[in-house]
Amino acid sequence: MKYFFVFAHPEPFSLSSHLKNRAVEALKDAGHEVIVSDLYAMKWKAVADGDDFPKRDTSKPLQYDQASREAFASGTQTVDVVEEQHKLLWADVVVLQFPYWWYGMPAILKGWVDRVYAYGFAYGVGIHGGERWGDRFGEGTLKGRRAMIATTVGGRMAHYGPRGVNGTMDDLLWPIQHGILFYPGMDVMPPAVFYEVGAASAEAVEEMTETYIQSLLNIHSISPIPFRPQNFGDYDDVQVLKAHLGTDVQGHALHQSEPAFVSNVFLGISGNYSPRHIPPTSHVSKQSTSQELSEVL
Amino acid sequence: MKYFFVFAHPEPFSLSSHLKNRAVEALKDAGHEVIVSDLYAMKWKAVADGDDFPKRDTSKPLQYDQASREAFASGTQTVDVVEEQHKLLWADVVVLQFPYWWYGMPAILKGWVDRVYAYGFAYGVGIHGGERWGDRFGEGTLKGRRAMIATTVGGRMAHYGPRGVNGTMDDLLWPIQHGILFYPGMDVMPPAVFYEVGAASAEAVEEMTETYIQSLLNIHSISPIPFRPQNFGDYDDVQVLKAHLGTDVQGHALHQSEPAFVSNVFLGISGNYSPRHIPPTSHVSKQSTSQELSEVL
Repeated sequence: MKYFFVFAHPEPFSLSSHLKNRAVEALKDAGHEVIVSDLYAMKWKAVADGDDFPKRDTSKPLQYDQASREAFASGTQTVDVVEEQHKLLWADVVVLQFPYWWYGMPAILKGWVDRVYAYGFAYGVGIHGGERWGDRFGEGTLKGRRAMIATTVGGRMAHYGPRGVNGTMDDLLWPIQHGILFYPGMDVMPPAVFYEVGAASAEAVEEMTETYIQSLLNIHSISPIPFRPQNFGDYDDVQVLKAHLGTDVQGHALHQSEPAFVSNVFLGISGNYSPRHIPPTSHVSKQSTSQELSEVL
Repeated sequence: MKYFFVFAHPEPFSLSSHLKNRAVEALKDAGHEVIVSDLYAMKWKAVADGDDFPKRDTSKPLQYDQASREAFASGTQTVDVVEEQHKLLWADVVVLQFPYWWYGMPAILKGWVDRVYAYGFAYGVGIHGGERWGDRFGEGTLKGRRAMIATTVGGRMAHYGPRGVNGTMDDLLWPIQHGILFYPGMDVMPPAVFYEVGAASAEAVEEMTETYIQSLLNIHSISPIPFRPQNFGDYDDVQVLKAHLGTDVQGHALHQSEPAFVSNVFLGISGNYSPRHIPPTSHVSKQSTSQELSEVL
């Protein structure tokens, strides 16, 4: 199979890089093809602006989506964007790997999405208006691919559990998993989330690494998150979930055909929260400020 | 009062810029002080990397949070970051205004957060470990300030309603409103969200503008989103909501002292969804692809 990693971490000797390197090595050893877009190493242009459309009419104000549409349709996008689009089309599996910074992706990765997800490629596909609003959420250019988030988190697992102060990781990842990965048609796999990584022992790191590798090797035997597709009868003609569906759930579970499915995966076990939600890496009690952990690693 | 706008749009002649310009003008006319960080005009450095710490020991791997901590503590941050921190400290009201791109902020704005929210400034404040995890969510450096998101959206309002295909706007904005604005102590106001802006008539634009201005002028007479503070008894010693609270709700409403509060505001009315959730700007039926709307404007 063909694996495409979009990787965002500034430090080659970080835990994130270690996880990525070991995963790539293991996949290649198993006979798979792998491409990595290491955004920091590539000095990826993070900011979406008029320079993304070298042939546009600069006498008119920039309307980014329309400029994107024209550049995509006319083959006048920048080379860096075209290359990433080709990698996405090439891949069977797309992995976004990043440190979890401020409840989302690092800016360089968000900028990869903003620029590579062109109009006509990732959105603006199909009719919009009347009873339709595009071929998306279960349809689209990237249909047939599997996608997965892998992320390292500074905070405690408890903070991201069903009643943790940050909100659940499933809900926090929703804008990416549903809005960025499912939108252009990819099936979204449960994410590999590693908590309290600043306190992780060597054994914990090895456990994370093995879990990550197994998730990737077995990605075709794992069930994707059961997000409801937009255009197959569950939603009405203004893309609102029909009244007889999801009657006894709230939040994002409404948009899963199996509402009880919990995608958050810790060390390979879906929805694995202990009664007090303490992860294995949390065994060291820290009191001094010199050992503070942070949300951003 | 002192208003600080962090503004992210590449085009000075966009609807976003129009809304921002009119709002700034109205606030000044009313006698308020206003500072705008126009990130595109400033050519803001979006990517967080080792260059953010000119005095760091480059013989060691970059650990971004620790480098941030040392630079903040020793006064060796870059000038651009220090200036933004001073603006935040100066302000009574902080407004993040941006087009809603791929279910989040444009990369340049995420990069403003990643870089300006330094360790010791926005996080890593207070004890972390044992029963505590920082002075955050209701406490922190920016306590006493009010913050608000203003965002323009390409999609239909229906898509962001209680059962809309995108998930609710309240849930989609949670990582920013709770994770970025409430985290360092700011009170978070209901957001100003404008839907289907690509189809907006001149009258609709004027209505948006007036609504936005009134939200800003009246920001001290509006109730903030009732997010629960972390350290005042609602959460236990691993920052999990105590069992007797929020017993009959799911999702982010758990973390509001008034679970029924809906923050999503359309043209000034909180939680204002019509039965079919059609916004006033949706009166034009579009069938031809030349009139397609998109998520990203």
